[in-house]
Amino acid sequence: MTDLTIWTYDWVPPPPRGHVRDIRLRWACGEAGLPYQIRAVRFEDRTTPDHLSRQPFAQVPALQDGEVTLFESGACLLHLAEKSETLMPRDAQGRAETLEWVIAGLNSIEMVSVPWWFVGLSSPPDNPLEGWLASRLSRLEAVLSQREYLAAGRFTVADLLMADILRVKKLHAALGPYPALQAYVDRILARPAFARALQDQLDHFTAADAARAN
Amino acid sequence: MTDLTIWTYDWVPPPPRGHVRDIRLRWACGEAGLPYQIRAVRFEDRTTPDHLSRQPFAQVPALQDGEVTLFESGACLLHLAEKSETLMPRDAQGRAETLEWVIAGLNSIEMVSVPWWFVGLSSPPDNPLEGWLASRLSRLEAVLSQREYLAAGRFTVADLLMADILRVKKLHAALGPYPALQAYVDRILARPAFARALQDQLDHFTAADAARAN
Repeated sequence: MTDLTIWTYDWVPPPPRGHVRDIRLRWACGEAGLPYQIRAVRFEDRTTPDHLSRQPFAQVPALQDGEVTLFESGACLLHLAEKSETLMPRDAQGRAETLEWVIAGLNSIEMVSVPWWFVGLSSPPDNPLEGWLASRLSRLEAVLSQREYLAAGRFTVADLLMADILRVKKLHAALGPYPALQAYVDRILARPAFARALQDQLDHFTAADAARAN
Repeated sequence: MTDLTIWTYDWVPPPPRGHVRDIRLRWACGEAGLPYQIRAVRFEDRTTPDHLSRQPFAQVPALQDGEVTLFESGACLLHLAEKSETLMPRDAQGRAETLEWVIAGLNSIEMVSVPWWFVGLSSPPDNPLEGWLASRLSRLEAVLSQREYLAAGRFTVADLLMADILRVKKLHAALGPYPALQAYVDRILARPAFARALQDQLDHFTAADAARAN
């Protein structure tokens, strides 16, 4: 029996499989050697009061850690990072660097890349977020041209998050002008714990297909 | 002599005054009674290697706390929250709620509202982010219809951040359909520490006008 429970959906349509954000938590637990169990809300029940009490934006993941519950994958990652030096160093500057790069992933990169992706779905002739995305990626390229990891000279949960942000298919395909970012994403995704987390998520949704076909 | 230094620009053009993100740190320090000093990088020097070593996206703020330095206003707020129970409760669930709502502000609300604002600058006939923003604000409205504060039944740094996100002029003007959000923003902004932080930022940039006119 483990104290950590990761909440996800029971099933999702094929396109987002492999990218549902419970993968960030699965991956972090894998890196840290923290056992966890998966619980699932029916995809169709995501706007019920029961699920909204767990995740008020009707999304996943949420994390239960004993008596403590929380939502937002970034918050869950920072919570898990307190449990394992593998995810975040214990010295003050190492903690600060991990924290700042987790937030930079969420609020300087993903704040541009996710809306860029979203606006691109409707294929306007010129994506109004193109230039802003390029400026952010160029700054990040400059950082990762100089070092292998974002924080503290070593792998941290900030790398896990940033690589998950950058691997989104359309964004990954747009990394041509940023060779350091390409090499970085490939390097971080080569970690065995990522491959396991990905396979576990894919298996989870495949099993749901079978269950729903019965 | 204080250990906390908040980095901002020496000067900015008038439009962003009152909204430069050092205000989040000034406000948090004010709430917590933490003394701080201001240091400024010349606005025109924001892409120099010196400033990029402090803030790799050429922005502000950055925070120096003794030997520790960090950037990203959200990260700085969480760092400051560790120093004061006024900003974040000390029990595990209270910490988790504060953390999840700080991240929700950054990655569920601002990830939509800032690009919505940005795309709106070029005034397309239909802002492609309008529906997404409405869905996020509706979910937040449901939460704040039920309670006064986001986390732990009391004011926390998560409210400071969320109110700063929602007070952006165009967004605030669009809150008509969300009476609970309107009341919430007004309530949080009525805190004396916000008024002081706002005035201090405005005074800082006004003084720069005078210095530059000489």
